[in-house]
Amino acid sequence: MPLKKKPVNGMKDIMPREKEIRDYVTRVITDTYRSYGFTPIETPCMEDIRNLSNKQGGENEKLIFKVLKRGEKLRLDEAKDESDVVDYGMRYDLTVPLSRFYANNANELPTPFKALQIGSVWRADRPQRGRYRQFTQCDIDILGDATPLAEIELILATTATLGKLGFKGFEIRINERRILKAMAIYAGFSDEALEDVFITLDKMDKIGIEGVKSELNDHEYSKDVVEKYIGLFNELEGERDVKKALSILREHHEGMLPDEASDRLREIVDAVEAAKEADFSLVFDPTLVRGMSYYTGTIFEISMPQFGSSCGGGGRYDEMVGKFSGHDVPACGFSIGFERIILLLMESGFTIPGQSDRKVYLIEKGYPMDKLSDIMAKAAAERKNGTQVLIEWMNKNKKFQKEKLTNEGYNDFVEFFKRDA
Amino acid sequence: MPLKKKPVNGMKDIMPREKEIRDYVTRVITDTYRSYGFTPIETPCMEDIRNLSNKQGGENEKLIFKVLKRGEKLRLDEAKDESDVVDYGMRYDLTVPLSRFYANNANELPTPFKALQIGSVWRADRPQRGRYRQFTQCDIDILGDATPLAEIELILATTATLGKLGFKGFEIRINERRILKAMAIYAGFSDEALEDVFITLDKMDKIGIEGVKSELNDHEYSKDVVEKYIGLFNELEGERDVKKALSILREHHEGMLPDEASDRLREIVDAVEAAKEADFSLVFDPTLVRGMSYYTGTIFEISMPQFGSSCGGGGRYDEMVGKFSGHDVPACGFSIGFERIILLLMESGFTIPGQSDRKVYLIEKGYPMDKLSDIMAKAAAERKNGTQVLIEWMNKNKKFQKEKLTNEGYNDFVEFFKRDA
Repeated sequence: MPLKKKPVNGMKDIMPREKEIRDYVTRVITDTYRSYGFTPIETPCMEDIRNLSNKQGGENEKLIFKVLKRGEKLRLDEAKDESDVVDYGMRYDLTVPLSRFYANNANELPTPFKALQIGSVWRADRPQRGRYRQFTQCDIDILGDATPLAEIELILATTATLGKLGFKGFEIRINERRILKAMAIYAGFSDEALEDVFITLDKMDKIGIEGVKSELNDHEYSKDVVEKYIGLFNELEGERDVKKALSILREHHEGMLPDEASDRLREIVDAVEAAKEADFSLVFDPTLVRGMSYYTGTIFEISMPQFGSSCGGGGRYDEMVGKFSGHDVPACGFSIGFERIILLLMESGFTIPGQSDRKVYLIEKGYPMDKLSDIMAKAAAERKNGTQVLIEWMNKNKKFQKEKLTNEGYNDFVEFFKRDA
Repeated sequence: MPLKKKPVNGMKDIMPREKEIRDYVTRVITDTYRSYGFTPIETPCMEDIRNLSNKQGGENEKLIFKVLKRGEKLRLDEAKDESDVVDYGMRYDLTVPLSRFYANNANELPTPFKALQIGSVWRADRPQRGRYRQFTQCDIDILGDATPLAEIELILATTATLGKLGFKGFEIRINERRILKAMAIYAGFSDEALEDVFITLDKMDKIGIEGVKSELNDHEYSKDVVEKYIGLFNELEGERDVKKALSILREHHEGMLPDEASDRLREIVDAVEAAKEADFSLVFDPTLVRGMSYYTGTIFEISMPQFGSSCGGGGRYDEMVGKFSGHDVPACGFSIGFERIILLLMESGFTIPGQSDRKVYLIEKGYPMDKLSDIMAKAAAERKNGTQVLIEWMNKNKKFQKEKLTNEGYNDFVEFFKRDA
């Protein structure tokens, strides 16, 4: 019986053209982030299953690929549930592993520590077009800096990188978990209701403000509370300027917003607007929630005009490292939507700038093997000068062969015939 | 209860210095192989468990990390053995996935197809110093070329890459599976005995020729057969020149060696010797076995003088793609021992050539946030000129802070005080 030719369900083979673009994007990202002082690290793709299942990852924890115990530790006959037969799991993001890494290695790392990670993550989501169960994430994080300098640098570095990849006119939407909470509490929701309220609020871009309102009413919250909450968003009248929006809220509702949170947002906006290199806007989005329950402060998300949904995001998660080390370390991260960027570049017919010349040496079949070394030496000399040289046997249908090679970017053909050898 | 800080057993956190070297080596490898016309591809880290368990991978098949089925497919209560609860496995090499990839995508790929893969593989080996359960492999393969041109190019490209990384004086040991078999059959071993005989022969470098002889005798093969077999190796008197060694064997034992196999070795040696760029020797090793049972022809291995054991290797495996597609495709590959190369570079105190300048901006705490943008703009200008600029707050113990940063390669400090803002 032949083996299975297809990749496993929901994962994909990456073909040369896409892989070349992925490699190029990886280099641009790495080089730009390194120029900002971020240092690359790597952690194993597997984590102790307990590290992945402690409620920090939200919905993603339901989507873990779990790894079977091995050898004597596996007692299938005595197993009652999954946790008896599993010890590791595939990471579903790079933030949990980074926090573990920092807790494990803090003594050897500088303070603050600016980390760059690019790596695969796995989620056993229902497969759907353009969404895969193994995909690449690309994160920068600053650990050990509680000031807004961290947010400022993350936003500047990420947007500079997107700019270098040719993106412009995009938006960074920003909010603060403490502002998000303050507005809901001010309206009259209880602490316990917040999670549910935010799941509904998060649908604003899909169902609109009336949809949010009716869903909250369906959940049987007090009509007055819902009315007051929705009123807050209406008052803003779509004001997206961070400082103007915060002023409106502050004027109408003294004491509602925590000063530290609104000051921080203002400081971030001022510095980013003054120093930004790329062409983008930083806008206030009071409905921005971000799913991960580990966020504690600033949150942000990238929106591309060409792309309906988010193209990356991040925020501050000051309480996660402490789950590993026992004492909290301020932390803030920004994740670029690597797969979406690749998709956008592929769809726009992107060509990698500064590609080297591509030349093919076609050798007639039967060319004496003892003369092959002359061809090899010639190729070596051309490669030294930066040319990419592919050597292959001439096919019977040379025209078709050349056409195929032209499609792969080869534009120069040199032919070697046995009569000339 | 705090979470687990350590990486899972046998896997490791990769710190910034090592990761920078790994990234550099990856770039050198990728750039060199691309100049030879190899194109990068990527496959998922998981494969259908059946693809990984069909005896091609030899011992590695016992070391697979297996992935638990999910959702309704998992019936733990009815499970009798592992195969009932597992559907995927982590790949243990890159050759099996490449063969599947080629079988799946051949129509869209050129012929021959020259593939470059760099990626993680997993083996649940007993953890030991310097050997990890997740590690990087780096393979080039040529599919669809049955001629020795494939071997020649693989050896030239791989050795050129090693040369660019600063390695010299190394050896490529070469043998042919068909010669290996012919010598054993000629001595009188049966076909069924070959696998066992080669497992013993493979220990030659550890136990010597007398050790091999006595182990074969212990396995109760006919004393005459063992004597004749050992005699063949003794006749060579350590001759390592491929062509001389083959001549000796041919003169003494007419008809023992298959002509096609010895001609191929000679052609490979001639072309490689004439066209090689790096400083290495290509030598004959009639005791070279290579563990993987999928090899069908030429096999080779890299030996570094600084390193006891192999530093990479490969060979021809003409029958693997057919296991997926139903029809065989000639295939040959060479894998660089990525982890060993990194280890050698780390131990030799390797520094990455052509690193950019590294500068730190130290900002006094309390520096007005609204002046931060000037510093950011200054940094942006320096980064444009290729300098790596790290921005951080000045610590109380500035001397210690600078010392730590100096250790990380920063050699230039600019200080910003609030009184000057």
